[in-house]
This record gives sequence, structure tokens and C-alpha cells, in this order.
Amino acid sequence: MKLVRYGARGAERAGVVDAQGRVRDLSMLLPDIGPAQLAPRTLAALSAIDVERLPVVDVVDAGESGVRLGCPVGGVGKIVCVGLNYRDHAEEAGMAVPKEPVLFMKAVTTLSGPQDAVQIPPGAQKVDWEVELGIVIGSRLKHVKKEDALRHVAGYVLANDVSERAYQIERGGQWDKGKSYDTFAPVGPWLVTADEVGDPHALALWLDVNGERMQDGNTRNFIFDVPSVLSYISDFMTLEAGDIVLTGTPAGVGLGRKPEPRFLKAGDEMRLGITGLGEQRLRCVQAG
Amino acid sequence: MKLVRYGARGAERAGVVDAQGRVRDLSMLLPDIGPAQLAPRTLAALSAIDVERLPVVDVVDAGESGVRLGCPVGGVGKIVCVGLNYRDHAEEAGMAVPKEPVLFMKAVTTLSGPQDAVQIPPGAQKVDWEVELGIVIGSRLKHVKKEDALRHVAGYVLANDVSERAYQIERGGQWDKGKSYDTFAPVGPWLVTADEVGDPHALALWLDVNGERMQDGNTRNFIFDVPSVLSYISDFMTLEAGDIVLTGTPAGVGLGRKPEPRFLKAGDEMRLGITGLGEQRLRCVQAG
Repeated sequence: MKLVRYGARGAERAGVVDAQGRVRDLSMLLPDIGPAQLAPRTLAALSAIDVERLPVVDVVDAGESGVRLGCPVGGVGKIVCVGLNYRDHAEEAGMAVPKEPVLFMKAVTTLSGPQDAVQIPPGAQKVDWEVELGIVIGSRLKHVKKEDALRHVAGYVLANDVSERAYQIERGGQWDKGKSYDTFAPVGPWLVTADEVGDPHALALWLDVNGERMQDGNTRNFIFDVPSVLSYISDFMTLEAGDIVLTGTPAGVGLGRKPEPRFLKAGDEMRLGITGLGEQRLRCVQAG
Repeated sequence: MKLVRYGARGAERAGVVDAQGRVRDLSMLLPDIGPAQLAPRTLAALSAIDVERLPVVDVVDAGESGVRLGCPVGGVGKIVCVGLNYRDHAEEAGMAVPKEPVLFMKAVTTLSGPQDAVQIPPGAQKVDWEVELGIVIGSRLKHVKKEDALRHVAGYVLANDVSERAYQIERGGQWDKGKSYDTFAPVGPWLVTADEVGDPHALALWLDVNGERMQDGNTRNFIFDVPSVLSYISDFMTLEAGDIVLTGTPAGVGLGRKPEPRFLKAGDEMRLGITGLGEQRLRCVQAG
């Protein structure tokens, strides 16, 4: 099942995508797609709904919609990110392949929709892209073993871990500073439930800037797989329903380009996607 | 005005502390002390209430209460922390005095009340204390100048930025990993409104472990003062009502003890306080 949140920013309503790619209104059945709706029992109950009998909101064609789509998860409590989780990306970043997952966080104020503009902060010179598989938590994890981790996953999302490299690396320590500007976490279009995704370790992911292919990876190349990541995080902090875990990006970010790094400027357009999770189309704009 | 949230964890209700130190019930007037209640207009309206006419919940004596107090802010969106903001603490930590604020985040799942137990994670050997002044945001800040920053402050809280130093420093980068275990952010007892606190740069703060004074500082020794910290953060991420900013800790943490570091174990008790913001009493327990 492909769940969406549609409508104006801050006033999104629950929806579901039908077999023809149209958004159907779920809001009379669910007040939101958020922590209270992501539990395994609720998601199981949703499968009893005959989607074709819900009212159509608008036509969705190839990830583009006449209606705005927001982040498909509401009430996100935290965004926990794994750094350097693809060997080729660690190498291009000039960093050691980690022996255990590197963790950092993005502010929840970064969240935006799959077609919303991405803001370039005033004066920022090093805004970069990172296509990533996002895990949406369905139920609480604290000290959960690898073999039990996947049962706490509600589903998966396409995400872009937009980063300002100077803020991240050159401004006095701790990456969070370069990860948390408004609109630096476009998520969606869809929350695809775990049953529909199947194996999360066999998904192609790609990102283009102005039509040029920059990233072209596959989640089979994770250093730490989904159960390992979730189990690991759950030893350091508790994950709750509605939290989002970003699993790292493959090679091809702007920082790693040869012979020169390449960064985003106002007017640039990113397109990105993951097998089965839809596409994002993001135009960069100058923040005022 | 001293605002509190009282009752069982996850079911706290709004209250206010009267002139005799008793908790009075505010819940018939306010659904919570959270983002929607912290705006300057709402706080101003609260001053019209005759607190003495509200029903008494329970007697509060020297920061201890017959009723449980929770974190005095509900619906916290994020916890942004400034590292190394006192010169003497940077020195004891063996780190350079920062040229600009070091920022990191704590997961919101760390929040707990001023008398709740602090959990020692299984196997953790280096759990440490950090008494800190917390700023509670009352309205949105994005690219706000220093001279305008204080008008966005709802009030201040006593906080303890509990940290596991091995997780923070020795486990593969980024401090968040050692800052985010459950109960690692005891906050309260009170949210004291900014008008009642006055100058936030003249507050004594202290922390005892098992009756021994460990930290004894004053916010006059900030490297970056409150307006500077807020303005700075607002250039990297947007602060919203209900967010909490922790301003760093003075010297005296366990990591910096001579001749040997000293860390917390189950059974230890921390007591800590800040002028006008009340006291915390926190017993350490082994997490299962």
C-alpha cells in the first residue's frame, strides 16, 4: 500500500494511491498518517479497505500531482541518520569505512514534500544532495535484536538528505549543523508499506541534477543492512512510531565530484528515485 | 510565572506553582504547556489568572512533590545543544575553546522529569552529568538577529545533559550517539517565564553527586550568550515554539575529574539546581 499526505503544508490529509496512480482520500478513515496510525495492527486493518471505492483526489502521473504532496509521515519525532553506509561514498568523501554505524540527526523542521522547493541558505556555497532509503518506524524499538528489528518497520520512503558541506564539516564540529536547514529533508512521494517493498536490500536508487545522472546505486551495497542499523540505533536511543531512519547515500554526491566538487545553486533541479518508492522533483531556490 | 506539567509520564497536565510553592491545576484552562501555549500572547494572558483561586494539586517542598512532575514543556520538537560554551569546561575536556558555537542534538525521547530515575544503559561505563540552562522557545526563529532573539524566548528551565562519554567520543563519530539514551534529558521542575527570570546571564548553577559538589558555575561565564546562541542557531535551522536549546555546561563533569574521571553507576544520586529555576533530584538505575 502506498500512503500519502496531500494538501497545503501543515494541513496535509491522509491519502492512498490506487492501482492507476491516483490519490484517493483516506482522511475520513484516518486523521493523519502518523505515529498512531503506523502500528502493525492499524496498517493491517488498512488492507481491508477497498481503495477503489474511496474518492479520487487528483491524478498522479509519474510522481507528479496536481495536488501538493507533503512528507508522507506526520508527527515525526526524530530523524536519525546513518553516515557513510556505502563503501564507495565513504571513499569519495575521503573518510574511513566505519567499523560501526556513524549516527547523526536532522531537525524535524527540515521535512518537506517530494516536489517542494529546496532552499539554498543565504550565502551558502556547498549545498549537496544525497539520495537515501528511509525507514519509517511502526512500533517502539529499544535494545531490539537484529532478527526482531524488521517487525517494527511500517514501511519505506524515498528521501534526500540535503547537506551544506561547509556547515557540516568546516564550522566547528558535529554534522547536524549542516543537515538541518529548512527543506533539507524532502521525503516521499509515498510511504510504501513493508509488505509491498519486500526485500529492502535490492533497491536501485539514483539522482540527477539538471538531467545529468549523479548517483546510481543499490541498497545491496549497504555496509550495515536495515536490521543491523535498527538494532544498533536501538542500543543508543529509543525509536518510536513515526520516527524516520535515513540509511546513508551511495557515491556520487557533489562533494566527491572530480576534478572539482559541484554544489547546488538556485534554479538547479534534482530528480531522484528508488525502485518502487516513487520519484522526487526538487527545484532549488534562494532562501531570503 | 512557574509552569509545570504534573501527572504520570505521557499523561501530564498543565499546572502552575503558587507563591507558597504549591502546584495549582491549570488543565481546565490549558490543554498542555506546549507549542500552542508558549506564544508571547498566550503567556501574557496567563498573567491575568489569579493563581490563588485555582485548585491545589499537591504540596511542593524544596523541589520535591507528592505528585510526579514531568518535563515542563510538552510537544518538544527538538533539543538543540551548544557544546563547550564555558571556557573552563572546554579546558577540562581537553578541547579547544570554540570560535563559533558547536551544535549537536539530543533525541526528544530523552526527555524526563526532575525527579525521574536516570537510566544507565546496559554495559555503559561512562555516564556523566552536565547541569545546563535550557531556553524554551516561544515563537519561530529563522535568521533572527541577536538584538531580536530574546523576544522569541518563552522562558527558561533547569536541565541535565546526561551523556555517555564512550558512546559520544569513542564509538565512531558524532556526539548525538552518546546524548540520546532514554532519560538523558531531565528537565524542570519548572518552566519559569522570561519576565520572571530577568537576566539569564547572572544565574548560578551547581550539581552534586551523592552530596559532593561537582559543578559550581555561573551563566555569566558563557562564551556565547543567549542572544548570540539563538541568533547563531537560527542561521542553520529554524527554531519553533516548544523547542529547547541547552546552553552548555560549566566545568566539573565526571570526564574532567582529576586524577581520575568519575562516572555514574546505579544507586548514585544527582542533585542540581539553577538560581530561580528549582532543583532536580535524580537517582541512577540500571536499565534492563
